[in-house]
Amino acid sequence: MKVAIIMGSDSDWSIVQPAVEVLKEFGIATEVVVASAHRTPDKVHGFAAGARERGVEVIIAAAGAAAHLPGVIAAYTTLPVIGIPINSTCLNGLDALLSIVQMPAGIPVATMAVNGAKNAAIFAVQIMAGKHVELAEKLVENRSKMAEEVEEKAARLSTKLLG
Amino acid sequence: MKVAIIMGSDSDWSIVQPAVEVLKEFGIATEVVVASAHRTPDKVHGFAAGARERGVEVIIAAAGAAAHLPGVIAAYTTLPVIGIPINSTCLNGLDALLSIVQMPAGIPVATMAVNGAKNAAIFAVQIMAGKHVELAEKLVENRSKMAEEVEEKAARLSTKLLG
Amino acid sequence: MKVAIIMGSDSDWSIVQPAVEVLKEFGIATEVVVASAHRTPDKVHGFAAGARERGVEVIIAAAGAAAHLPGVIAAYTTLPVIGIPINSTCLNGLDALLSIVQMPAGIPVATMAVNGAKNAAIFAVQIMAGKHVELAEKLVENRSKMAEEVEEKAARLSTKLLG
Amino acid sequence: MKVAIIMGSDSDWSIVQPAVEVLKEFGIATEVVVASAHRTPDKVHGFAAGARERGVEVIIAAAGAAAHLPGVIAAYTTLPVIGIPINSTCLNGLDALLSIVQMPAGIPVATMAVNGAKNAAIFAVQIMAGKHVELAEKLVENRSKMAEEVEEKAARLSTKLLG
Amino acid sequence: MKVAIIMGSDSDWSIVQPAVEVLKEFGIATEVVVASAHRTPDKVHGFAAGARERGVEVIIAAAGAAAHLPGVIAAYTTLPVIGIPINSTCLNGLDALLSIVQMPAGIPVATMAVNGAKNAAIFAVQIMAGKHVELAEKLVENRSKMAEEVEEKAARLSTKLLG
Amino acid sequence: MKVAIIMGSDSDWSIVQPAVEVLKEFGIATEVVVASAHRTPDKVHGFAAGARERGVEVIIAAAGAAAHLPGVIAAYTTLPVIGIPINSTCLNGLDALLSIVQMPAGIPVATMAVNGAKNAAIFAVQIMAGKHVELAEKLVENRSKMAEEVEEKAARLSTKLLG
Amino acid sequence: MKVAIIMGSDSDWSIVQPAVEVLKEFGIATEVVVASAHRTPDKVHGFAAGARERGVEVIIAAAGAAAHLPGVIAAYTTLPVIGIPINSTCLNGLDALLSIVQMPAGIPVATMAVNGAKNAAIFAVQIMAGKHVELAEKLVENRSKMAEEVEEKAARLSTKLLG
Amino acid sequence: MKVAIIMGSDSDWSIVQPAVEVLKEFGIATEVVVASAHRTPDKVHGFAAGARERGVEVIIAAAGAAAHLPGVIAAYTTLPVIGIPINSTCLNGLDALLSIVQMPAGIPVATMAVNGAKNAAIFAVQIMAGKHVELAEKLVENRSKMAEEVEEKAARLSTKLLG
Repeated sequence: MKVAIIMGSDSDWSIVQPAVEVLKEFGIATEVVVASAHRTPDKVHGFAAGARERGVEVIIAAAGAAAHLPGVIAAYTTLPVIGIPINSTCLNGLDALLSIVQMPAGIPVATMAVNGAKNAAIFAVQIMAGKHVELAEKLVENRSKMAEEVEEKAARLSTKLLG
Repeated sequence: MKVAIIMGSDSDWSIVQPAVEVLKEFGIATEVVVASAHRTPDKVHGFAAGARERGVEVIIAAAGAAAHLPGVIAAYTTLPVIGIPINSTCLNGLDALLSIVQMPAGIPVATMAVNGAKNAAIFAVQIMAGKHVELAEKLVENRSKMAEEVEEKAARLSTKLLG
Repeated sequence: MKVAIIMGSDSDWSIVQPAVEVLKEFGIATEVVVASAHRTPDKVHGFAAGARERGVEVIIAAAGAAAHLPGVIAAYTTLPVIGIPINSTCLNGLDALLSIVQMPAGIPVATMAVNGAKNAAIFAVQIMAGKHVELAEKLVENRSKMAEEVEEKAARLSTKLLG
Repeated sequence: MKVAIIMGSDSDWSIVQPAVEVLKEFGIATEVVVASAHRTPDKVHGFAAGARERGVEVIIAAAGAAAHLPGVIAAYTTLPVIGIPINSTCLNGLDALLSIVQMPAGIPVATMAVNGAKNAAIFAVQIMAGKHVELAEKLVENRSKMAEEVEEKAARLSTKLLG
Repeated sequence: MKVAIIMGSDSDWSIVQPAVEVLKEFGIATEVVVASAHRTPDKVHGFAAGARERGVEVIIAAAGAAAHLPGVIAAYTTLPVIGIPINSTCLNGLDALLSIVQMPAGIPVATMAVNGAKNAAIFAVQIMAGKHVELAEKLVENRSKMAEEVEEKAARLSTKLLG
Repeated sequence: MKVAIIMGSDSDWSIVQPAVEVLKEFGIATEVVVASAHRTPDKVHGFAAGARERGVEVIIAAAGAAAHLPGVIAAYTTLPVIGIPINSTCLNGLDALLSIVQMPAGIPVATMAVNGAKNAAIFAVQIMAGKHVELAEKLVENRSKMAEEVEEKAARLSTKLLG
Repeated sequence: MKVAIIMGSDSDWSIVQPAVEVLKEFGIATEVVVASAHRTPDKVHGFAAGARERGVEVIIAAAGAAAHLPGVIAAYTTLPVIGIPINSTCLNGLDALLSIVQMPAGIPVATMAVNGAKNAAIFAVQIMAGKHVELAEKLVENRSKMAEEVEEKAARLSTKLLG
Repeated sequence: MKVAIIMGSDSDWSIVQPAVEVLKEFGIATEVVVASAHRTPDKVHGFAAGARERGVEVIIAAAGAAAHLPGVIAAYTTLPVIGIPINSTCLNGLDALLSIVQMPAGIPVATMAVNGAKNAAIFAVQIMAGKHVELAEKLVENRSKMAEEVEEKAARLSTKLLG
């Protein structure tokens, strides 16, 4: 059970890190790579084309600006590719969002919210749960945990308001 | 092998139809439903909560305007939900795109391009290919076919330019 | 006389708080709830469906990002729902604004400015003044007070300019 | 039981008309006025300031471009004002939407979707149902009817797909 | 020779101040007023309607958010009204810009850049120079001074680069 | 009494024409010129620099896309320059609007609504009325006529609704 | 003297054609190719990597939606790459514009206006004129011709206005 | 071998500086100028018209807001002009981007990313490499160096993750 996570620059790491942590919580191995669609295109090509053979089941690709990385990877594999638009320019991530989500017919990239690394990881788990049934159970537990967290926050605010 | 496709209004059908066709080409059964997150919320709730038991492996949800449908479905299931923003208002689909893609941490929706129904279907196949290995081969064939189509178009233009 | 105020996350509290204060000034009771349309959908459903019976006359719902909360609540009640788009992502609140205001025909949400909690409260009072006549008078007084405040600011600037 | 509907230009009528029809269905009288915040400001002033005395309970104001009409009316009355941004310029209604929804603290306008006249009317009914209890029942019936319409559309699509 | 400057809130003063300073440099008297199109509409009405009689030749109006102030003033006078959109919300001044510039046919507002107070003042001088010929000369001098300032900046950078 | 009207392309004429007509109604002579800031820069330079000597009191400049024409003209004259952003590309006039309105400090361009030619003319008259007092009266008459037209439209709609 | 022109789909041909025509006028050979960054990535790779050896001096790449083509080509060559954003989705070309222009540091793409094929060709000529001096002269002639065309249009409008 | 770099204000220098540094690394002389399209138009005219004679082969022009500088320069020379939109207003550089990239047919400006000074320099080198063959080799070396830098960053992150 392995997910590959690739980002265009090591400066994206602080945004991408929560994805790695979520996958670890679900007991999924990760392969974390820095490579640039434009500066190291051959590395990206090799990374994508060989992913299935390396046992990768899902690829998460994060990029900012003219964020071609997820789409370029999707062109070289039929594994599911999840794209995270990174807010790294003065255009507030809108450039990265449109560069990732508006893929032409034939080569999809599953786009998450701007800087939405955590959801990219959860979606990867949802994909893999089709094959690895134990993940489906963990996802249900994860949902319960999230609901509890919301309840805790609600309780904290109630206390504050009463106080 | 089943994918559920839900849309907010039957007027979305002409946009959504290519998704059904692609899935048929891959030999995947579809369950096509019209239901509104706001006008028939209980139906949507039931649809989403019972999907896994009905044998659904992936849900595709299409909606325009304040496009809550994909997110509302994702709240009631841990199956992968793919969202198609529909261009149905004067804001050119930007409203639907942002309403679908900007999901908060915890509940992801895999967002496609505005009106990107075909890619929603292909991505559903990519998800299911993790479990159903025969789909992986079909995806590779599909890629070859796409490449051939591009080549045919290229040839046609060349002929035109020479003529 | 009661208004329910619901927000998607306790981190929205600092933005929402002025609404509670304004309602208090008008002598209106408030029910403040944290619940997530996506992480605790059943709680939201229960909150909305039971609101009228709990004596709630107006619901104020605040949410950021893909801000489905106000619309989801509106789907489960015919009480007036006022939506406050929260600026909580790098897209400056435009995502929340469009997710709330572009509701499809049939299920309205009365949308306020981004982060416009104070106006949400005043609008709730204006709604309730139809039934509770004493509120209409208080609204007129409130307007006078606002006009006075503008005058005080104007006077302060004049003094400064003369000085 | 009366709602006043005002629009900046008679060219807005085709967009506004559904609001009048919905209100008629609910048995609510309407006062339909054409007046311009900029070309006939005194008429607008008089219209707004005297509305309560004329028995008006809610005002719906529709305007396009720099859509000041709803805000200007709200400045002269404490009745609830519902704003409909009209898509009447090449900027797709975004100009009208921002001009209406971004009201400063103190003077709210309840903003509907661009061209969202039907919802403006339903929201007016929801407001008035606080005082006029019979309207609350009619709203519930209206919801059922809407749900049935969605079901009919769903059935029609199912038939089409089976056929 | 007098220009009236009106702003919606005293918090706009730091943005508006350069306009007052430029006018002073040109020897033009100013009348500085704080008034709100929505909270003190009668004051705004009186301010605008009486401006010509008070000897005002040009009105500069600054406002943020749903910036109705310049348009409302233009509705009550035929003096030239110059609008300054203020960046006072999370929407970066785009709301104020569109609310001011998109005036309907018949009632123009001369719109400046977001936060462009200095240019509002210079444009007021350019208007008044039609009647007050001495201002035309001063405008030419002002241009020369600006050109010199650019040259000084250019020289400073050259020195830096050589150093 | 003369206003110069310049446009970047003769294809802008249908948008600009109403400005010429309004000025004619006010008895103001016009000088209509087609010249391009980029393709015929010297002509534009000459046009702007010599305008005052030719008796021009106000310049109206219309341009679409990267609409530099109004700003370039303002650089060569201290006469008031009014800019009309033309909607001539697929970006809906937003490109022209920002290119015209966001002028840097020192060289203002009075910007009208996208395609707002009529208001450009009326604003030119408002400028000239400072010197030519008879225009001030005509502006007041013009306002009355506009108000009457709104009333006629209102009456027509009333008749329709009653009928 | 050769320019390569590549487009993502033969449906872009009507937009791209003017570029080929302009280059022909300047006596420059063209190599016109249809290839997709995502559907035929190897063909694009080969096209870009071998361009210099085939005698290509400049590459023009046109693409719509998530327009990765120009950037992907720039990753495989150090020849100058000119990008033409194509308006091919409901987002008015803004998606293509941002996907092309926001290239990360290191790999530039010279971006033209949305659908700006003619300028792409002229810019290619300007680049090549550095080496091929005869082109510099032709560019000056081309400018004169453009100025004449503007003059003819101006004359035509004058005649119309006089008539 | 010389590139001219012009900027509208010395406050743009910190953004533009990397362009000068890159060109120095490639052994290309630079001519750095501060001049304003609007405040010193004659200087800009002279700068552009005389550039070829001064031995300039490429012009880089940086400007913010209504960024007319690159287009105005392009109007006075047939040398290739590269535009850098500067993010200098509250509109996040979108104003400058559209003002530069949307040039009308006939007069191209090669537009870089907002604040993309480094790429402007590299693109200038790519242009000049057509004539100066030694630059082509340096560009290839530069690419290798960039790839190495990406690898170093990748290695650093790997180490961090292992640690």
